[in-house]
Amino acid sequence: MVSEGYAKKLLADVQAGRLSVDEAAAGLGSLGYEDLGFAKVDHGREARKGFPEVIFGEGKTAEQVARLAEVVLARSDRLLATRVSRAAAAAVTVVAPDAVYHETARVVTVDRRAETRTAGGLVAVASAGTSDAPVAEEAAVTAELMGCEVSRLADVGVAGIHRLLDKLDTLREARVVVAVAGMEGALPSVIGGLVSAPVIAVPTSVGYGASFGGLAALLAMLNSCAPGVAVVNIDNGFGAGYMAAAIASG
Amino acid sequence: MVSEGYAKKLLADVQAGRLSVDEAAAGLGSLGYEDLGFAKVDHGREARKGFPEVIFGEGKTAEQVARLAEVVLARSDRLLATRVSRAAAAAVTVVAPDAVYHETARVVTVDRRAETRTAGGLVAVASAGTSDAPVAEEAAVTAELMGCEVSRLADVGVAGIHRLLDKLDTLREARVVVAVAGMEGALPSVIGGLVSAPVIAVPTSVGYGASFGGLAALLAMLNSCAPGVAVVNIDNGFGAGYMAAAIASG
Amino acid sequence: MVSEGYAKKLLADVQAGRLSVDEAAAGLGSLGYEDLGFAKVDHGREARKGFPEVIFGEGKTAEQVARLAEVVLARSDRLLATRVSRAAAAAVTVVAPDAVYHETARVVTVDRRAETRTAGGLVAVASAGTSDAPVAEEAAVTAELMGCEVSRLADVGVAGIHRLLDKLDTLREARVVVAVAGMEGALPSVIGGLVSAPVIAVPTSVGYGASFGGLAALLAMLNSCAPGVAVVNIDNGFGAGYMAAAIASG
Amino acid sequence: MVSEGYAKKLLADVQAGRLSVDEAAAGLGSLGYEDLGFAKVDHGREARKGFPEVIFGEGKTAEQVARLAEVVLARSDRLLATRVSRAAAAAVTVVAPDAVYHETARVVTVDRRAETRTAGGLVAVASAGTSDAPVAEEAAVTAELMGCEVSRLADVGVAGIHRLLDKLDTLREARVVVAVAGMEGALPSVIGGLVSAPVIAVPTSVGYGASFGGLAALLAMLNSCAPGVAVVNIDNGFGAGYMAAAIASG
Amino acid sequence: MVSEGYAKKLLADVQAGRLSVDEAAAGLGSLGYEDLGFAKVDHGREARKGFPEVIFGEGKTAEQVARLAEVVLARSDRLLATRVSRAAAAAVTVVAPDAVYHETARVVTVDRRAETRTAGGLVAVASAGTSDAPVAEEAAVTAELMGCEVSRLADVGVAGIHRLLDKLDTLREARVVVAVAGMEGALPSVIGGLVSAPVIAVPTSVGYGASFGGLAALLAMLNSCAPGVAVVNIDNGFGAGYMAAAIASG
Amino acid sequence: MVSEGYAKKLLADVQAGRLSVDEAAAGLGSLGYEDLGFAKVDHGREARKGFPEVIFGEGKTAEQVARLAEVVLARSDRLLATRVSRAAAAAVTVVAPDAVYHETARVVTVDRRAETRTAGGLVAVASAGTSDAPVAEEAAVTAELMGCEVSRLADVGVAGIHRLLDKLDTLREARVVVAVAGMEGALPSVIGGLVSAPVIAVPTSVGYGASFGGLAALLAMLNSCAPGVAVVNIDNGFGAGYMAAAIASG
Amino acid sequence: MVSEGYAKKLLADVQAGRLSVDEAAAGLGSLGYEDLGFAKVDHGREARKGFPEVIFGEGKTAEQVARLAEVVLARSDRLLATRVSRAAAAAVTVVAPDAVYHETARVVTVDRRAETRTAGGLVAVASAGTSDAPVAEEAAVTAELMGCEVSRLADVGVAGIHRLLDKLDTLREARVVVAVAGMEGALPSVIGGLVSAPVIAVPTSVGYGASFGGLAALLAMLNSCAPGVAVVNIDNGFGAGYMAAAIASG
Amino acid sequence: MVSEGYAKKLLADVQAGRLSVDEAAAGLGSLGYEDLGFAKVDHGREARKGFPEVIFGEGKTAEQVARLAEVVLARSDRLLATRVSRAAAAAVTVVAPDAVYHETARVVTVDRRAETRTAGGLVAVASAGTSDAPVAEEAAVTAELMGCEVSRLADVGVAGIHRLLDKLDTLREARVVVAVAGMEGALPSVIGGLVSAPVIAVPTSVGYGASFGGLAALLAMLNSCAPGVAVVNIDNGFGAGYMAAAIASG
Repeated sequence: MVSEGYAKKLLADVQAGRLSVDEAAAGLGSLGYEDLGFAKVDHGREARKGFPEVIFGEGKTAEQVARLAEVVLARSDRLLATRVSRAAAAAVTVVAPDAVYHETARVVTVDRRAETRTAGGLVAVASAGTSDAPVAEEAAVTAELMGCEVSRLADVGVAGIHRLLDKLDTLREARVVVAVAGMEGALPSVIGGLVSAPVIAVPTSVGYGASFGGLAALLAMLNSCAPGVAVVNIDNGFGAGYMAAAIASG
Repeated sequence: MVSEGYAKKLLADVQAGRLSVDEAAAGLGSLGYEDLGFAKVDHGREARKGFPEVIFGEGKTAEQVARLAEVVLARSDRLLATRVSRAAAAAVTVVAPDAVYHETARVVTVDRRAETRTAGGLVAVASAGTSDAPVAEEAAVTAELMGCEVSRLADVGVAGIHRLLDKLDTLREARVVVAVAGMEGALPSVIGGLVSAPVIAVPTSVGYGASFGGLAALLAMLNSCAPGVAVVNIDNGFGAGYMAAAIASG
Repeated sequence: MVSEGYAKKLLADVQAGRLSVDEAAAGLGSLGYEDLGFAKVDHGREARKGFPEVIFGEGKTAEQVARLAEVVLARSDRLLATRVSRAAAAAVTVVAPDAVYHETARVVTVDRRAETRTAGGLVAVASAGTSDAPVAEEAAVTAELMGCEVSRLADVGVAGIHRLLDKLDTLREARVVVAVAGMEGALPSVIGGLVSAPVIAVPTSVGYGASFGGLAALLAMLNSCAPGVAVVNIDNGFGAGYMAAAIASG
Repeated sequence: MVSEGYAKKLLADVQAGRLSVDEAAAGLGSLGYEDLGFAKVDHGREARKGFPEVIFGEGKTAEQVARLAEVVLARSDRLLATRVSRAAAAAVTVVAPDAVYHETARVVTVDRRAETRTAGGLVAVASAGTSDAPVAEEAAVTAELMGCEVSRLADVGVAGIHRLLDKLDTLREARVVVAVAGMEGALPSVIGGLVSAPVIAVPTSVGYGASFGGLAALLAMLNSCAPGVAVVNIDNGFGAGYMAAAIASG
Repeated sequence: MVSEGYAKKLLADVQAGRLSVDEAAAGLGSLGYEDLGFAKVDHGREARKGFPEVIFGEGKTAEQVARLAEVVLARSDRLLATRVSRAAAAAVTVVAPDAVYHETARVVTVDRRAETRTAGGLVAVASAGTSDAPVAEEAAVTAELMGCEVSRLADVGVAGIHRLLDKLDTLREARVVVAVAGMEGALPSVIGGLVSAPVIAVPTSVGYGASFGGLAALLAMLNSCAPGVAVVNIDNGFGAGYMAAAIASG
Repeated sequence: MVSEGYAKKLLADVQAGRLSVDEAAAGLGSLGYEDLGFAKVDHGREARKGFPEVIFGEGKTAEQVARLAEVVLARSDRLLATRVSRAAAAAVTVVAPDAVYHETARVVTVDRRAETRTAGGLVAVASAGTSDAPVAEEAAVTAELMGCEVSRLADVGVAGIHRLLDKLDTLREARVVVAVAGMEGALPSVIGGLVSAPVIAVPTSVGYGASFGGLAALLAMLNSCAPGVAVVNIDNGFGAGYMAAAIASG
Repeated sequence: MVSEGYAKKLLADVQAGRLSVDEAAAGLGSLGYEDLGFAKVDHGREARKGFPEVIFGEGKTAEQVARLAEVVLARSDRLLATRVSRAAAAAVTVVAPDAVYHETARVVTVDRRAETRTAGGLVAVASAGTSDAPVAEEAAVTAELMGCEVSRLADVGVAGIHRLLDKLDTLREARVVVAVAGMEGALPSVIGGLVSAPVIAVPTSVGYGASFGGLAALLAMLNSCAPGVAVVNIDNGFGAGYMAAAIASG
Repeated sequence: MVSEGYAKKLLADVQAGRLSVDEAAAGLGSLGYEDLGFAKVDHGREARKGFPEVIFGEGKTAEQVARLAEVVLARSDRLLATRVSRAAAAAVTVVAPDAVYHETARVVTVDRRAETRTAGGLVAVASAGTSDAPVAEEAAVTAELMGCEVSRLADVGVAGIHRLLDKLDTLREARVVVAVAGMEGALPSVIGGLVSAPVIAVPTSVGYGASFGGLAALLAMLNSCAPGVAVVNIDNGFGAGYMAAAIASG
């Protein structure tokens, strides 16, 4: 699946001894993975993406989560598992006693790097209401494990806009802002109008009636009148934290 | 269609001569209308609602609009026609030379009251962007004809929130605020968090992509996190102005 | 976040001693709030909105609801908490023995004002069917706590329209009408055609099949052919009651 | 495609000479049609349905409409063509000089029956607003051609409910009521609460904003709180008139 | 709420002694109802609609259902309660020992008429699959209580169309057909193409994936290519049975 | 329900003794079924479709599933029952001790054919993630029972595209590919671009937020930019396996 | 982007002289394309998919279509261009005088194969109504160019089911059936119940009101109660024809 | 609208002469704008966001666009106007002879900076098909004006994945990738699985049938199985380019 010209040049180099098999294999982008039966763990992920494969805990048994954690940690010094029940977190602790369970975020992390200094700029995680906390915390923990310094600004929704304006200094200091909101989802637009940093908007399923499980907030954020705003899936705190870290540590 | 007890009491009073036929007819709520063939003009409307029947111009011929205007003005000293083309407005002027055409709002008004002093409190009409002007103006002209003083605040969208905060005095002075916005529809929530007056939110079909013809703004406004906000149909400036006047002049 | 001209004038006045620091701070709209960790209580809310912050009980623990109630009551003589379970209501009673639990409405109220005379005009709360009662009652209790006299008209849906017409006197007496309906949501349109007062329409999630959780009623209400109707979110009795009180007591 | 037992009994009767081929063919429900190349005209339709195949004019050329009319009239003494442009109507007149074009309804009819006395009960066609007239008229003309007496009640929408109540006598006299409405679509529910006759509800695409091309009215009608209401497609006046005639003439 | 002319004529007749109070009250359509606190029972319903108010059991306590049954039976000799749990059915039996619980349909009926001969034509209730049985049975029981003879055709969906064609005789004999189907909802179209009787289509929520709770079947039925088909709400067997009886017994 | 000409020819042949009753019955397509009361088992299905009627277990009692299994096996040597609970599977084992329960797929099969050699080409079942396994397995088991050789490619989603490219040989060998994916549903498009075999795409309800129960994947697959892709219902593994077998064994 | 093991083995073979550069390049799947500036023509398509890249004419200028046709024909002996205007078809004729324009289908084809004998089984293309003809014809022309024999069955919709049953012989003879229908989209289900061949269902945007541009038909087809049905995008005749040919010629 | 403590401290400093009026005004965040009547130009935008207000040309007259361009250029050395017609572009050239019209992107730019060296990392703009070019080009031009080096990768959709894999070097070199796609919208997921840079996904309205104006692609992108992907509105090339530049130049 490479272009004809490139492939032939590379192969000719191997044939002629100008390239070793290993160098050419790397040039072809050959990548490894490990087959567990119920899943194929993508060991090339860390090479390609800068971070090992993340375990999505929902719908998996505690045993499956623990087994996946074990396999990931066999090759990487970091682990991130999201949507993890308390039971699954306990199972992970058996195979990784240094695992930490972040309860609000429902996230398990392991960090075995020699030194875990933060890299890149500040990530600010702003959330509109108290019910948005689990999603915001999932974003914050993710960004921290990926090496970012994170500043949390909770309960700064637009119905009491002075609470937000009061935090302008922190917002303007940030390299990237994650803005988490349910209901009418106006927070990213207001922040996007105040700062020059990129804003990652996260709609949450908080709300009732015509919020339609976060659809109202999602549409509002996609239609933000402020430039510099991009959106991730409803309740996808992990995605926002990952994206923010990719931006901040770039 | 009245309750049995009430009807019998009233009829017994007529039978006994305690009530005249006219008084009893009024007690039964009997109401008149006029049949034009293509429409029945509801002359009881002004009695019930405090304002004559409003002509909705869309999908009607210039002749029909003019004929309806004539019939309404035969019994009322005010006229309001919305969604009126320039041609239909001209046709109205033939039957009502004192008719005024409000071009941005696409509205025709006639006001023949002896004195047209404004009654009730101030109506503030705030709009988010320049494209929201026609809807906002329809609301403003409607409220004015219904006897309200109106203050217009244009282009105060949330992406440059200082433009809005700069008008806080006017907003707080108002008896009712009409907030007009397309795109993410965040303006009513922000205003609703700043003032104690009721806010009538008007989503507009301004936007593109996932705004879905105003649906994004509509959902956002229905999910406003600020209390004291109620919503009218997409682009329904007339409805918002009417509602605002009903509140302000109460 | 104020305009340049206004800010400089105010600051010059302070510099020149024409304004005290307190007066200028008020002019800048500086506002206080209290950080509870899991929430920031907006103490400026009562100043801005005329009513203290309302506690939304859904998704909060009994302890959180009680703690928030305590904080609000420390500064205000009124409390409103909606969507409160029986357990959370009990927890509130511990910190506020004079709290009242309105069971149908699932609302907790405290009213410690010296005199609680009603202000402004009458609020009529009309509901279409018996299943709409909880939403209607939430609206009624909210408006009462905000100082309004409320008249309840239950089970007056349009399939037996004489029950509604029989209450015309009460409807016409009202300063504002709240109309609560599920299914086809026709009640606000019919009432809107009969009275001159503004009508706040509340769609409920009552219905099945193609009611889609209240969507059918919501769309019907937004498309009301009667002017003077505005809509709040599905099942949002609180929002309707709040809006009605803001109108009636204006 | 008949059951094994039935088929064998019938065939044995033919074999034994107890049934002629023609009688058995009828017993098997064999049916004729005519292939025009661009369409197959279903001549069995009149036998099965009591009315010849109806021509749907939209998207067909004037020539195609005229050709289809010719083929239908070769075997039937009635013709109904809907959504017919003025040009196509003219083309039909060439092949059927006695064709009548109903302009508001955009319908062409031919009726060559020896005597066209009305059969069955009265069909009442009620419509909410003046813009609903084309759909209502399509229903009325269809029912008339199918042999029903039709009474038209125009502009009786629920925002001026006395106009409707004033026609109660006619409504209660009807064997079936067709109720045509756009916007919030409340008319069928109100009529359904007043009469015992079945009500055929027709949503129209009249409206704007969140009417979504008639979807709001459609959902409202499907959720009618009054029993005895069934719904046809948006703007489907023909379908409603056909259904009403099938009921009234039964 | 009657027209001015009519009301004055009637009142003048009373004044002049030409009409008694009772006659005039009837002429005004005055109607009674009974207020139970949690519901207003519409005793005028039987007069207007030919059938007493129907009890919708969903969301009501067993006590409420039983109390409503008692009140309805105090004035009527028939009772219909739908969506009734086994517990509520038992409670009804206490106040009405002759009540019958139809388990599949989840319906309770009482019929105390002196003679319950069927009136009008046959109602055929056809259903596509075994899972559609509860909805079909609700329709059948309703039509029976309203005095119709009912013929049930179960499991005749279009994937094995010979099962349907085999019942053509019964279908063609019927005065009205109720066609119940989930999934792709094709049954009413096929039946509508075969018979001249009107067809009441009932979409059911049977299906999965993109059936979206019956929406797929609902849309299919509204778009039926066969004329003479009208649709009721998803799973609304009662509505279809009621409509069918109104047609068959007309 | 056959054409007039065909029916008459056939009947004349019977009359003339050229055809026996049985032959003519077959020519008329007469077909048998068995009525169990709660269902009609379509015994003509195997003749028409090449496979006996499949039992859909969802919403049926264990007894009903077992009874249906018994009836099917009385006439066929194969049985397929989908969406079967463990309890219903046990009930089937009582009437068919050779029944096999496929736990991941929630499918019961019986295969009593003398020789069960695979026919036709290879069916490849590719799935994107571990959560898609139950749907993929339902497809695989179905195809196997219908006589196909099946190759399973699990966890080959597009976020690690080398895992998919690594299986190109198997994919290109297949006569037909079933591609199962939730979330963004991109797998069928990528496979469709790589192979010439037809691809049956199965969206799954795996995902959260704006996946809307599989709608996102469904729409993506319908809009595939690669030709040679067709789609079945969300989570409909059985349908995909059946379709694949119909293609492969053709 | 191949697996590590595979790549290394292949490279070692080249290094050792066991494989030539060309053979190894083929093993790596290296593929060519041609960059036209406004498009990259995928010359590997014919190798991978068995058919050259198809030109989608919508939104392209006549010049662009002709230029693309020229490039495709430089390497392939067949050409298929869909959604081609008459003007663009003329432009293609300039570069390929043997091009054929299929007017109903709006398709241009060129076929320069030495012998164009049909391969594989029969493709039957059945369509419900006359308005479905363009989509059906697009499917038929596509399948023919791909080497299939095609049988067209027009106007066999389910409202006159005898027209369909009359064609059972042809349907049962087919290796694969394409079923094209708008409105309620029932045709594929009925066919799917009658034949054992796989059915490719194509919803069309034919219809009005609640057909929502083909959505009603699409959902119906996805929910087909008959197994052996898969669906392509609305109006995607090309996709259905391509899929059918891939099945029939397999 | 600042917190009480902060405001009082600042005012006390002014009162005490520790801060000048200008310094304190800046501390309060006071901001300027210019009122043009039909719009308020936000001159604080460049200070807050690092880029002057962008002109959205759709729905504005050529004169309005030109006037706005003039006002922006009076205070800034850069100008960006999107969705600009050829006529409006000509009007801008009158007031800014150095304006450049980018035809494919429909964008006007002016760049008067002394030196316009690119800053930050590379922005790669990948698009799936030729029809996506206008949106991709809008993104590219926007990012270039904001100071980024841009690399364009056109026509690299997933149906011919080797064209994309062939560009892996460029993609991996980029600091941020903009991925533009219509139809099934799979491109961002595949790219997101290959690179560690953040990916901004732009759905386009390219497609037909069930693409629903870009909704299918939008949902697919929001549900991407690859982390590091965030989404902007349908067809919002400007938004993606702006976001990319904010990331790349951070």
